[in-house]
Amino acid sequence: MRKIVFTILCSFLVHTLAAQELKSPDGSFTLSFRLKENGTPAYKLQYKGKSVIGESDLGFTIAPSISFNENFVISNTQFNSSNEVWQPVWGEQKEIRDNHNEMLVSLNQTSTNRKLNIRFRLFNDGLGFRYEFPVQENLRHFTIKEEMTQFKLSGNHKAFWIPADYDTNEFPITTSKLSEIAGLIEKVRNEPLAAKAPASGLTVQTPLMLKSDDGLYINIHEAALVNYPAMALNLDDKAFCLSAHLTPDKNGNKGYIQTGTVTPWRTIVVSDDARDILASKLILNLNDPCKFDDTSWIKPAKYIGVWWEYFIGGGSTWAYTDNQDIIIGKTDYSKLKSNGHHGANTAHVKEYIDFAAQHGFDAVLVEGWNEGWEDNWAYAKEEIYSFTKAYPDFDVNELHRYAAGKGVKIIMHHETTSSAVSYERQLEDAFRFMVDNGYNAVKTGYVGPIIPRSEYHDGQWMVNHYLHVAETAAKYKIMVDSHEAVRPTGLCRTYPNWLAQESARGTEFESFNGNRPDHTTILPFTRLMGGPMDYTPGIFQGDLSVYGSNKAKLSTTLAKQLALYVTMYSPLQMAADLPENYKRYSDAFQFIKDVAVDWDNTYVLEAEPGDYITIARKAKGKNEWYIGGITDENAREASIDFSFLPAGIKYKATIYADGKNAHWINNPKDYVIRTVVVTSKTKLKQKLAPSGGVAISVKE
Amino acid sequence: MRKIVFTILCSFLVHTLAAQELKSPDGSFTLSFRLKENGTPAYKLQYKGKSVIGESDLGFTIAPSISFNENFVISNTQFNSSNEVWQPVWGEQKEIRDNHNEMLVSLNQTSTNRKLNIRFRLFNDGLGFRYEFPVQENLRHFTIKEEMTQFKLSGNHKAFWIPADYDTNEFPITTSKLSEIAGLIEKVRNEPLAAKAPASGLTVQTPLMLKSDDGLYINIHEAALVNYPAMALNLDDKAFCLSAHLTPDKNGNKGYIQTGTVTPWRTIVVSDDARDILASKLILNLNDPCKFDDTSWIKPAKYIGVWWEYFIGGGSTWAYTDNQDIIIGKTDYSKLKSNGHHGANTAHVKEYIDFAAQHGFDAVLVEGWNEGWEDNWAYAKEEIYSFTKAYPDFDVNELHRYAAGKGVKIIMHHETTSSAVSYERQLEDAFRFMVDNGYNAVKTGYVGPIIPRSEYHDGQWMVNHYLHVAETAAKYKIMVDSHEAVRPTGLCRTYPNWLAQESARGTEFESFNGNRPDHTTILPFTRLMGGPMDYTPGIFQGDLSVYGSNKAKLSTTLAKQLALYVTMYSPLQMAADLPENYKRYSDAFQFIKDVAVDWDNTYVLEAEPGDYITIARKAKGKNEWYIGGITDENAREASIDFSFLPAGIKYKATIYADGKNAHWINNPKDYVIRTVVVTSKTKLKQKLAPSGGVAISVKE
Repeated sequence: MRKIVFTILCSFLVHTLAAQELKSPDGSFTLSFRLKENGTPAYKLQYKGKSVIGESDLGFTIAPSISFNENFVISNTQFNSSNEVWQPVWGEQKEIRDNHNEMLVSLNQTSTNRKLNIRFRLFNDGLGFRYEFPVQENLRHFTIKEEMTQFKLSGNHKAFWIPADYDTNEFPITTSKLSEIAGLIEKVRNEPLAAKAPASGLTVQTPLMLKSDDGLYINIHEAALVNYPAMALNLDDKAFCLSAHLTPDKNGNKGYIQTGTVTPWRTIVVSDDARDILASKLILNLNDPCKFDDTSWIKPAKYIGVWWEYFIGGGSTWAYTDNQDIIIGKTDYSKLKSNGHHGANTAHVKEYIDFAAQHGFDAVLVEGWNEGWEDNWAYAKEEIYSFTKAYPDFDVNELHRYAAGKGVKIIMHHETTSSAVSYERQLEDAFRFMVDNGYNAVKTGYVGPIIPRSEYHDGQWMVNHYLHVAETAAKYKIMVDSHEAVRPTGLCRTYPNWLAQESARGTEFESFNGNRPDHTTILPFTRLMGGPMDYTPGIFQGDLSVYGSNKAKLSTTLAKQLALYVTMYSPLQMAADLPENYKRYSDAFQFIKDVAVDWDNTYVLEAEPGDYITIARKAKGKNEWYIGGITDENAREASIDFSFLPAGIKYKATIYADGKNAHWINNPKDYVIRTVVVTSKTKLKQKLAPSGGVAISVKE
Repeated sequence: MRKIVFTILCSFLVHTLAAQELKSPDGSFTLSFRLKENGTPAYKLQYKGKSVIGESDLGFTIAPSISFNENFVISNTQFNSSNEVWQPVWGEQKEIRDNHNEMLVSLNQTSTNRKLNIRFRLFNDGLGFRYEFPVQENLRHFTIKEEMTQFKLSGNHKAFWIPADYDTNEFPITTSKLSEIAGLIEKVRNEPLAAKAPASGLTVQTPLMLKSDDGLYINIHEAALVNYPAMALNLDDKAFCLSAHLTPDKNGNKGYIQTGTVTPWRTIVVSDDARDILASKLILNLNDPCKFDDTSWIKPAKYIGVWWEYFIGGGSTWAYTDNQDIIIGKTDYSKLKSNGHHGANTAHVKEYIDFAAQHGFDAVLVEGWNEGWEDNWAYAKEEIYSFTKAYPDFDVNELHRYAAGKGVKIIMHHETTSSAVSYERQLEDAFRFMVDNGYNAVKTGYVGPIIPRSEYHDGQWMVNHYLHVAETAAKYKIMVDSHEAVRPTGLCRTYPNWLAQESARGTEFESFNGNRPDHTTILPFTRLMGGPMDYTPGIFQGDLSVYGSNKAKLSTTLAKQLALYVTMYSPLQMAADLPENYKRYSDAFQFIKDVAVDWDNTYVLEAEPGDYITIARKAKGKNEWYIGGITDENAREASIDFSFLPAGIKYKATIYADGKNAHWINNPKDYVIRTVVVTSKTKLKQKLAPSGGVAISVKE
């Protein structure tokens, strides 16, 4: 392991109101901190001489009615710096450099003799800062009524936003000026979603992607969200000032805090080149190193699943029976009659296992295997599912044997319908059941409002719950893919068994109200800033009317679906469509079979949020590269510069491109596959259809 | 097993508004049911021709805003009866007769086509009825906004009451006319208690004991409280009508119900002889039979404990260190310094084990053995205690070995400080830890407001929690003694490992604000109607000023403390005082050593709520009887009729009585012990001092 650490430690006792300054290692960023006249801490951030964040307040109000954001004096300022390289267990690149300068400001609130520290870390791609609550005599426990952190922007930026909602992040993403949000937000909030608890007022979620009129790309999010509520942002659309809006519990409290702890990092990733935003590892760098000694059991994977068939209107159901009068623990399923179209039956799952084995997939996800689906009305009852009892037609032992014989894993599914305590009650038994039956990964789900009924998806309690699940899973060497959980904040560095999350509008919405053609050109700049997304791409048959009553149509061309395997980074990638469609388009399917899920390196070739993304990645430990390029509703010509390839070697590139007449609306399945020879000098121009894409595999 | 079951089943289809009548087996009770003109179900209850409950409404309001208490028609009425004898695993008597007549009324709400059943069971000592929600087409899940059950009393009865509070039942009991409650309740509510969430208005808790001017004793409570909130009672003090007031969650919902389930039984125990109230087994009879096949591991026990020393002001602490900046799972206790007066240290616990072994106690309770006590501010933080990590000076292995060698069990202590989910998270590990280290019983505690923060102690969620703990404990063959939990409702029949509860103002309050001299003459008529109470009697040194700063004084004579071992029924009885006090009064201590904790039979010899109780019990499987008599603040002469003894045999009775000058205020430790010969013909007159008592052991 290459590891370079430079540490400079210097400490000043400062009693003046003079600003403290910190520069990024390359000098492009300047962070200034000062106390305002009333003792309110404030910071500002400049990038290459431009204001990114104008002077913005810091601090808290805490209960009972104490201002923890004024009357401070600086008691100490410490500087530090670090430049080291670390290796993630899996990721977009095998090595990540953490190069930052740090300033730790220690504050004392003179009126109360209470202490608050603020730690700033300035990287070459942006700023992270967090609050630290040192152990102190006059404060041990307190309740946060609000975090007063501001992000004062320099103007009326273009924003890529979804409305703040304590229970969901599955809204479509809107692109507008900040000043236009007020006129648009209520309509977006009307989007039908399984659980909604809208924050009042002009409030949006992070990661929030912004672009200034003078060409600065700014991404605001958070890192290492642990034992704290997720942060949304209030917008003052006159002053263009954002301010923290923490997710409350239903008692209106935003966080129950004990001194000796820290907040998550508030992150501001900045560049004048959009590609740098996607390439940033600032959020991962602000998370703690991996907590596990042994990570050999953590393995990126590509999978198929008994899943999409539940969405397409073809009749397949999660539920085993049509009898909805189910009481878990009392209902004897062996006495109930199957509805005849239960998806997760042994014979059908074996077909998936066969297909996975034949085409080299690591695993098969099976949803609807367990008791309880007939009556899973969220919030109405607490004990909804058994996580250890399979339906009568799902033979756990036989499928274990069968899958193992074919070298395929079955991915466990734990839909909780947000009955979180019920899940925790069964958690150890559920994981033991998995280990006993050969499962090493679980997809969790949190559809609907939360039980305990004081809680929201994004509040402190649930934030702790998700992590509790991931940590407990690790005890059993189980990997986790959580759906409908709070948006990620880079915790996969610390807990690399937490492979992926959904936490945004995924492919399933293509079967409901649809996704927009620009959706996946924005997600990497928003949702994916916090970590991998289990977007579940790979839909070839985009016209769902072929199956039955569902009239939904996919928002992309087939070639774009392939490209998503590269542009939407995840160590866990699904081929979401039915096997029959892959058989029908087996030449295009080859790309999904080939594409890697873990990488030595990543090259962001082209990027503009809302418009296009082109990314190349080198497969981990192999001389293979995969390239994905996508566009929004507009056709475009991608420029693919192969200079990332080793010089002087000829490679065979297989190009999966939109056909001449391809169009996401009326001709999505028009694709062409061609093979060309490329070298590091190749510069390829490739046309992309409206909402089209290109996928390229490069091998020796 | 003697078991006699008579079953008569008859079914009528009734479309009229005519009243349905049911008689108790002995004919002393008449229950009438009818639909009022608006289709509201109503019942009334008569005893020996007197009205106990005048016509009172039944039904619910459910969300969203539906009256589920009118527009009903009767679709069916079924009658049934039962007369059988069953054997409790432990109890006041080895056999219990369940002799009742039953009427099941099936209702249909014509406006909604929704169905509601009401099942009445009439015994020779009162009425039980419950609602049943049958599986039906037009209703599966609903939220109870209120249960509309009324209990219309015949007049301004004397009541023995505590105010309704969703979080506590530790108020002192007030005796007053119903009409006087309004003038008294606010003052009682001011009682300082660890968690309070007072129900608004004129609302009291059950078990509510009443006495009518014409000499009827009426007890209103509930049986088999499962998956439903505890019921308090609103009082209309003009009409003397009580009505159900269910404990809500903090969202204001009172119950989340699925059809196919039933409510708890509403119970009305009635007699013109107060002794019949104490002898009633109606509540146990309305609970389901024991759920466990093997109950051999469930053993009544007598115990001492490292407990009272924490209350007396002598300096001993639960906490190991004075450092309060504890974060469970992070704080390394091995690096902290002991405060020097931690109670649960190995050497001190061994002294208790020695004392227990020497004097024949089954077990030693040890509180303060585990990490977390330094910073256990309820509600402020969720992870407060470890239930598997002992303090550095508590040697789990050594104490396991030492106690086992002496034939003594250590009773585990799990104070949760009401952080219920944190407890559930650790539950299986905690019980496994107990099994691994030789523990077979746990005292749980729920001091302070509840986490999840939507919940109260007595709401549906916590009701489920307590039972979840008891059921999980049973998997590990562990007995449970829960403190500060919801008041019991006879579930110990179904789950006999749930040995005892506190759930009322126990002996610990003698070290705070004190208990009144009449307190223990009322508790058997109120709190103990639902099940055994771990009252922790046996305080010999009642003047706490001998230890230090605590000026509290016990509210009884020493002889009364002995009598409580008989009058306060529990299969788990503590000798709560310090061993040094038992050594000092070893002659009186002999009664505590001798007294049984499980019984073949019980004879209530004298009883008047608020005044006196005299009870004799035959020890299980032995020719030994123990008698306890207590009085309130007034001296009295108890009349003890020994006709319960087998005829023609002489027995030696050892009488532990108040001395001539005994008085609870200034001379509590004046007692005399004498031995007399008794037969079944003996009638003993025994003087009791003010707040005094008498305890008698009878052996061959």
